[in-house]
Amino acid sequence: MNFNLRKNMSYTAISGIGEFGLIDKIATLANSTLPAVPELLTGIGDDCAVFQPSAELLQVATTDMLADQVHFDLLTTPLKHLGSKAISVNVSDICAMNALPRYALISLAIPASFSIAMIEELYQGMSHAAREYGLAIAGGDTSSSRSGLVIAISMMGEVSREQLVHRSGAKPGELLCITGALGGATAGLKLLMREKEIMLNHIENNESYSRSAMADLKEYSESIQQQLLPLARLDIVRFFHAHHIRPTSMIDISDGLSSDLQHLCRRSKIGAMIQEARIPILGSTRRIADELQDDALTWALTGGEDYQLLFTIPKEEYPAIADNKTIAVIGETTDVEEGVQLSDIYGMKIDLSSIRGFDHFSS
Amino acid sequence: MNFNLRKNMSYTAISGIGEFGLIDKIATLANSTLPAVPELLTGIGDDCAVFQPSAELLQVATTDMLADQVHFDLLTTPLKHLGSKAISVNVSDICAMNALPRYALISLAIPASFSIAMIEELYQGMSHAAREYGLAIAGGDTSSSRSGLVIAISMMGEVSREQLVHRSGAKPGELLCITGALGGATAGLKLLMREKEIMLNHIENNESYSRSAMADLKEYSESIQQQLLPLARLDIVRFFHAHHIRPTSMIDISDGLSSDLQHLCRRSKIGAMIQEARIPILGSTRRIADELQDDALTWALTGGEDYQLLFTIPKEEYPAIADNKTIAVIGETTDVEEGVQLSDIYGMKIDLSSIRGFDHFSS
Repeated sequence: MNFNLRKNMSYTAISGIGEFGLIDKIATLANSTLPAVPELLTGIGDDCAVFQPSAELLQVATTDMLADQVHFDLLTTPLKHLGSKAISVNVSDICAMNALPRYALISLAIPASFSIAMIEELYQGMSHAAREYGLAIAGGDTSSSRSGLVIAISMMGEVSREQLVHRSGAKPGELLCITGALGGATAGLKLLMREKEIMLNHIENNESYSRSAMADLKEYSESIQQQLLPLARLDIVRFFHAHHIRPTSMIDISDGLSSDLQHLCRRSKIGAMIQEARIPILGSTRRIADELQDDALTWALTGGEDYQLLFTIPKEEYPAIADNKTIAVIGETTDVEEGVQLSDIYGMKIDLSSIRGFDHFSS
Repeated sequence: MNFNLRKNMSYTAISGIGEFGLIDKIATLANSTLPAVPELLTGIGDDCAVFQPSAELLQVATTDMLADQVHFDLLTTPLKHLGSKAISVNVSDICAMNALPRYALISLAIPASFSIAMIEELYQGMSHAAREYGLAIAGGDTSSSRSGLVIAISMMGEVSREQLVHRSGAKPGELLCITGALGGATAGLKLLMREKEIMLNHIENNESYSRSAMADLKEYSESIQQQLLPLARLDIVRFFHAHHIRPTSMIDISDGLSSDLQHLCRRSKIGAMIQEARIPILGSTRRIADELQDDALTWALTGGEDYQLLFTIPKEEYPAIADNKTIAVIGETTDVEEGVQLSDIYGMKIDLSSIRGFDHFSS
């Protein structure tokens, strides 16, 4: 009797099924609420939910939570940058639907140790970023926190029915394109963690940690900026709209190219073959990887937080994007049976499903 | 020199200016983002932001954050109830604009100690409530938490331009009305805290804490339900819409009648006079107050978390609400110079600005 009870009530830690397993379970329960609201065209499973308030206009909506010691470290992150980044990661999700951000709601759980000046700095970063992206901070909630700072942002964007892009629209035989360069966010993070360790060692040994003891980080600034102050690719969405380009599918690279390419392929029911030699990686990122005896390609594939856009277009539309120097073709989509593969510089094929992206719940 | 530096950089703890002082500072920064988005009709300062996606339809949006040990205690709160309450508090804000909830975005920061079953229970409560209110859970974000559970919900609702109600529309000489009965949430909380203390004492003394040691809480269940499982007054919004009633102003009672009445009066630039004898208080709430040698009226005025609606209507519209037994007239609006006052059962007038509501940042 007790045995059966235990069997039915078995304890499964979240790390046992991982972040995506948890999302699947949540999606099942959340989807039970959808039938009542026919205006909701897309629920959980894409970069944004899609809502149809009127005949022609669509609204896209996303939410993102950043927690101290999980997503950021206040020792290495200026509050103004953190505020800006919190806005950018949500704008990036809106961009991934080919939509324009319109307004945001911001909830903060604030530790007792925070001063007014700290909150103002955080909010200055958020409102500066909001103005740059042309979106309004429309409301919010503040509460105290018994532990670290938690920032939860929800953001609503707009797009016409003709311009909306899902993860699910790609077909085999199309071009796989990426914006910007990858790996920079991870390189920047590794560098900041190293500097933090050096600083803490100095403090522990009662040595002064002066400017002269600090590494000259100037030549790495591109990568550090990618980590501390990433920019969502709203310029690409504007480029698409101006040139009447509509990608067949799109996703933002927040979990790493490998993981996000697999999300896109799963939703589009296709496979993919990307070329290692074509994956754009920042020069400073390669230098940092060499210095830390690590691998820049692995950072680009699994590091995450780069907030670039990965999208597909039919081959015949290549001329439309050819002139945009911030877009690179990294491979092609294939039939679903061929899986999601990387061809390395020696022509060896690597199954990307064997490479794991970042999982917040893995131990 | 140092003295001046210190003066300019002085540390002000948030408790020094309080929750509403903090919100004022945030609103100033947030409002700097509004000019870019003319579709945003109302930003921070009401129960919801108001956004105009198309000519006739308006969207209202709110967000609310609940943190472990700040807003709830898992020792006394079943997870399913917590999920339901988290939805209800947001629906209540939507209702306060006379709008109907359409969809929600849910972000969770989850402690490592949580099991899958616990998250499913929380989500079952949320999706059950969502179905009851006819709204969809459209998306969300999950991350790990280094400390307690944090739930952040954003909710979008819809209302026509003719039906939208702000906090700011009341005029002097109107009726002040309230739905339901107040004080129950505080009474329920006090009772649950007493039971928790008894239970922890039993555990500390190594005594078994059996059912027989528990107080029989059945006769208090109304008040406990008000605390654990409050219902937003969507029924009232539907009543208004069905009977073509449009309150001149409205707010939901989340901080306590005294505090929320003052918010409404400040935004409407009016005063108010409410009658103690007319404030509806649950019978079980009065019994609990007697038992705990506390004051039910104080709970009703300052306790908060009752999630009833406070609204104003012109006197000539009284017949339209007279048949609704869950609405009570508690007083009248006055000129702003008369302040916000309570007339007690002896006819004594008490300035409500001298009574403080709940402040999350007060020490």
